[in-house]
Amino acid sequence: MDALEILSDLENVFPYFQPIFSADEQSVIAYEVLGRYESEGNIISLGNFFQDDQIPDEYKYDVDLLLVKMALNQALTLDEDISIFLNRNADLLMYRHGEPFLQELLAFEKKGLRLDRIVLEISDRNYAGDLDQFDHLLQYYRTYGIKIAIARIDSESNYFERIGQLKPDILKINLQALKSTSTGINFHDVLFTFSLLARKIGSTLLFENIEMSYQLQFAWKNGGRYYQGFYLHPPVREFIERNLLKERLKEKFHDFISYEKKKLEAVYTTAETFQAKVQEIVLKNRNGTFQDLFQALIKELDQIAFRMYVCDEDGFQKSANIFKETTGWINQAQYIQKNWSWRPYFLENIIKMRNERKGILSDLYSDIETGETIRTFSFPISGNEYLFIDIAYQYLFQHDQLL
Amino acid sequence: MDALEILSDLENVFPYFQPIFSADEQSVIAYEVLGRYESEGNIISLGNFFQDDQIPDEYKYDVDLLLVKMALNQALTLDEDISIFLNRNADLLMYRHGEPFLQELLAFEKKGLRLDRIVLEISDRNYAGDLDQFDHLLQYYRTYGIKIAIARIDSESNYFERIGQLKPDILKINLQALKSTSTGINFHDVLFTFSLLARKIGSTLLFENIEMSYQLQFAWKNGGRYYQGFYLHPPVREFIERNLLKERLKEKFHDFISYEKKKLEAVYTTAETFQAKVQEIVLKNRNGTFQDLFQALIKELDQIAFRMYVCDEDGFQKSANIFKETTGWINQAQYIQKNWSWRPYFLENIIKMRNERKGILSDLYSDIETGETIRTFSFPISGNEYLFIDIAYQYLFQHDQLL
Repeated sequence: MDALEILSDLENVFPYFQPIFSADEQSVIAYEVLGRYESEGNIISLGNFFQDDQIPDEYKYDVDLLLVKMALNQALTLDEDISIFLNRNADLLMYRHGEPFLQELLAFEKKGLRLDRIVLEISDRNYAGDLDQFDHLLQYYRTYGIKIAIARIDSESNYFERIGQLKPDILKINLQALKSTSTGINFHDVLFTFSLLARKIGSTLLFENIEMSYQLQFAWKNGGRYYQGFYLHPPVREFIERNLLKERLKEKFHDFISYEKKKLEAVYTTAETFQAKVQEIVLKNRNGTFQDLFQALIKELDQIAFRMYVCDEDGFQKSANIFKETTGWINQAQYIQKNWSWRPYFLENIIKMRNERKGILSDLYSDIETGETIRTFSFPISGNEYLFIDIAYQYLFQHDQLL
Repeated sequence: MDALEILSDLENVFPYFQPIFSADEQSVIAYEVLGRYESEGNIISLGNFFQDDQIPDEYKYDVDLLLVKMALNQALTLDEDISIFLNRNADLLMYRHGEPFLQELLAFEKKGLRLDRIVLEISDRNYAGDLDQFDHLLQYYRTYGIKIAIARIDSESNYFERIGQLKPDILKINLQALKSTSTGINFHDVLFTFSLLARKIGSTLLFENIEMSYQLQFAWKNGGRYYQGFYLHPPVREFIERNLLKERLKEKFHDFISYEKKKLEAVYTTAETFQAKVQEIVLKNRNGTFQDLFQALIKELDQIAFRMYVCDEDGFQKSANIFKETTGWINQAQYIQKNWSWRPYFLENIIKMRNERKGILSDLYSDIETGETIRTFSFPISGNEYLFIDIAYQYLFQHDQLL
């Protein structure tokens, strides 16, 4: 199908709407507008049309404007708390400095469509223009209440910095990558930290391309508030009943919540067990040397731990590392006097232990030397001494609720 | 200076070494090799030479090889735990499938230079070749113990995914962006989450371009283990005494640690104060409605909080929101039955409160509705009811140890 066919047959161009569901309401809170064209009974996507570099921006703008008008007219019938996502790549957005498009939106505001219901889904991929001007335009739109969602950033600047600069209302994450097993585990870490970044800067995470139940769970577990994809609902010509999936989603979330709580409870119980065990050993050895303490700990934790050491409250290591090799436990004296205060959570945990006189079982992370996924149990021995016990992956694997 | 001049005058090409310091040892743990050329008494950087697209890869490779040989020969005199960082852009790395370069390294291994001391500092910026092949080559190098540092990624794939895929040993972060005030606060959030990602995947953070004391503090606070920059030491022709800065760095870190511990202690004390205050009010109102409880809380916390609500342990909101507007506190009934279990830390905190029967003061984050920087104090009211009190930015600002 070529561009001219579409341009000479605009009456067969129309919007489709992909429902977006929220985790907090379990109902439709927005629609993403998608372009469609009907040709000989087939309904085809206009995605290629908009991405085709051969087609002048002017033509794209005209087709887009038509879609936007039809979509927003239809949106006038929606509940007033339902938003409309409009896709804009940087070129389309910057067309004539973004002014005609804004005028169009303002015309709809007069008809009763609040502009804070409009979400511009931005991609600056392959954008060759001036990024500063682009950013300024976005900020200008925002003064009207219009929201910004970032679909994908591939500018010269790096991804993190761009997100920090733009502080988008919504960050859109494509779950297609989840299908490939190669990205599996690390993708999880990446998304987890992504959810923390979103929390820090006040952006909402929207997961797209949810096609299976486990992807929904993955999105939910990683801070996703909004979801879309065929698993929930395909794009449609007419709006759907907003509570269509409410019961199904409630059930799903109930399952996710139960599963997660069980896991968290298991981690908590493990921490309590370690607490009791380590406290007892520490008390028995309170007059001995670090080496005495380590020997007593090894007796109990030989199959659980792989490294132990003691730090003071500033993070300076007071003991050697006791490290388990295949042949047995060895002493690594070169670690004495190293400082670990620069590590994330280190001082925070020290202050917590100092005040509560209780041990802490860490989250999962990768050991910087072995590369293995581990947890660390830390414990306040006395006034200024803190014991760190690194738990082996082997043990976590055998108690898989800890993974 | 043109490329031909350099190519015909290779005896004036030589390496410079920028010392890299570690937070744990407060001493030099590596050198980055930089190319220099001496012309008429001036020593100039070869950076432009290597970045010049007009110069054939073959010539660049020859000059680079010369630098590597000179640098590694010099490195044979170093302590055996000091590493060497070699810059490789993707084109240079892929030159003849990376084979001649590897042979060169293996020749040095025979002379006593362990290959796990070699760190390849990779940039795939503007790389037009096959990224899969590039990644495979990196993995191949790694089988020899060679380490990978990522300086900057700007490929078609996105930044996060690339880092997840490559799982680099070291992530290098340029602090030049810190100089611009516009990126200030968000840059901090971005780097904080970056440090957590590094922790999760087991990568070490190296901060470069440290030129002032506050940048060192920033790097330390954000999980930086390795540091380089003029504030510490300029690039030099000869290796330096590894403990040259030990005392100065120890003092610096001591100051950072004290400052950070004071802040953490203040947060802890505030949490204790909230705990006592809220517990008392909750006990007094244990037979009343949520509205009674909120009214009693408002009396005490009017200048501190701006939003309160109650959830059950699955995250379903049991009460309305009580929200402070400029005119006073209002009731937002539309929040009843919303679910918040998808938010980062939510269920984790519920389980903690359920078990310890004690409130939690959160870290700083951006409120998703107001966009303001806030903290939340959450508190277990009874069996299945948890109170959430959002603390206003105004209050945090007046008690700036909480910021």
